[in-house]
Amino acid sequence: MKDTKKIEILRVKGSDVLEEEDIVVSEYPFTIFVNDEELITLLCSPKSLKYLTIGFLSSDGFINSTSDIIDIKIDKEKGISYVKIKNENSLIEKLYGKRTITSGCGKGTLFYNVLDSFKSKKIKNKMSITLDEIKNLVKSFSKNSELFLSTGGVHSCALCNNNEILIFEEDIGRHNALDKVLGRALNDDVKLTDKILLVSGRISSEMLIKTAKREIPILVSRAAPTSLAIELAKELNITLIGFARGEKMNIYSNFPSFNF
Amino acid sequence: MKDTKKIEILRVKGSDVLEEEDIVVSEYPFTIFVNDEELITLLCSPKSLKYLTIGFLSSDGFINSTSDIIDIKIDKEKGISYVKIKNENSLIEKLYGKRTITSGCGKGTLFYNVLDSFKSKKIKNKMSITLDEIKNLVKSFSKNSELFLSTGGVHSCALCNNNEILIFEEDIGRHNALDKVLGRALNDDVKLTDKILLVSGRISSEMLIKTAKREIPILVSRAAPTSLAIELAKELNITLIGFARGEKMNIYSNFPSFNF
Repeated sequence: MKDTKKIEILRVKGSDVLEEEDIVVSEYPFTIFVNDEELITLLCSPKSLKYLTIGFLSSDGFINSTSDIIDIKIDKEKGISYVKIKNENSLIEKLYGKRTITSGCGKGTLFYNVLDSFKSKKIKNKMSITLDEIKNLVKSFSKNSELFLSTGGVHSCALCNNNEILIFEEDIGRHNALDKVLGRALNDDVKLTDKILLVSGRISSEMLIKTAKREIPILVSRAAPTSLAIELAKELNITLIGFARGEKMNIYSNFPSFNF
Repeated sequence: MKDTKKIEILRVKGSDVLEEEDIVVSEYPFTIFVNDEELITLLCSPKSLKYLTIGFLSSDGFINSTSDIIDIKIDKEKGISYVKIKNENSLIEKLYGKRTITSGCGKGTLFYNVLDSFKSKKIKNKMSITLDEIKNLVKSFSKNSELFLSTGGVHSCALCNNNEILIFEEDIGRHNALDKVLGRALNDDVKLTDKILLVSGRISSEMLIKTAKREIPILVSRAAPTSLAIELAKELNITLIGFARGEKMNIYSNFPSFNF
């Protein structure tokens, strides 16, 4: 299973109609089994599946750290991940808990409630970053997106320090892209409380909550945030930035943590 | 609850940083109860909630037509919809069935399996439409999107005949926008087998499946389709068009049904 597929299309430009070859992004059903129970089937891009598994289990509260994972096996051909984790009781509780279906691309279902987020710890760490540093990160983020450039069909997500991108992932779903980045950070034991998260897509409450749970102080998007995401960001002292493109950006919350 | 909210932001342009008022799109938790059971909480835009309820229940197979609905009450203030439907057994079956969490914006969870789509009826109706008619629909679709123009934060969806838009809806989730359109069509008893569906967002398999279930022959997007969506469209004789902008578009499937 490759990231992209070549297909025959009719390309229309004005009154011209041409048969051409085009590249489209692969969509791939990927099922996660946890302790021999089928947990979920994600529709995703077939890349970084181990990180996606870890990130999904972490974002949805099944694990707190990689030490909760006893074993993880990925069968890429079959599109299956077999995971053994500790805390089986908490798993059962989760499986029978309420689900919120959200507005998000990819993993729209959160096993936790929106209101849980208010129980998240408020960000205390005042990160020192300049607007120019953010603009530079946004520029290299745009350059990085290979799959997007070839297909126009994916979301990207990056974890950065003040000067460079440390982890970069793409997926047809924006939640998958975020979970891949968070999963890889967890796997590689990367400290998150002094990092910046860049995302290509819109920021709704559940994107904000995932960021808050990992205590990442700054979330930057090329697109728009929703009202609820802004309210949560204010409540949790997260600096939320939207429409970050070229020399422009809108800062929605936690203004004082900024170093101009 | 309004569609948009006014907030204070810092607007950055180059080295200028200005305090300004901005408009952002509202995000609103909306819970659907069916026969006194809590079914799901959607995060959506607070508009057309009756159509969203009907469309969601229809897309996810809880109802086949509005005659399956005994009663429907919307409490907009509380964000709750109370629905009484027939076929309680099928509801229970659905509730305990497998869920696929998908890549989609809004209602990423489908209660049906991707493979179910292959059981969908193939489109037989050869629609007669010209490229110019599609270009004109795409142009008026772009003009229609008020919430997008004010906030940049929503997806839109429209049901059209060859000459004009009949139903238009917007939502922070692309699945919600689609379900609102399908729900309204069901509510108003609009025939779908000779219509065109326009969507602003990417087309993944579950968007295609929702279209197929209602036997809509043509699906047009301003954005990219995934490989799986294209395969399904070919299998089901749906004409799938992506990157429809101005005078351009890519036609991915079912070429012969086209009238040039």
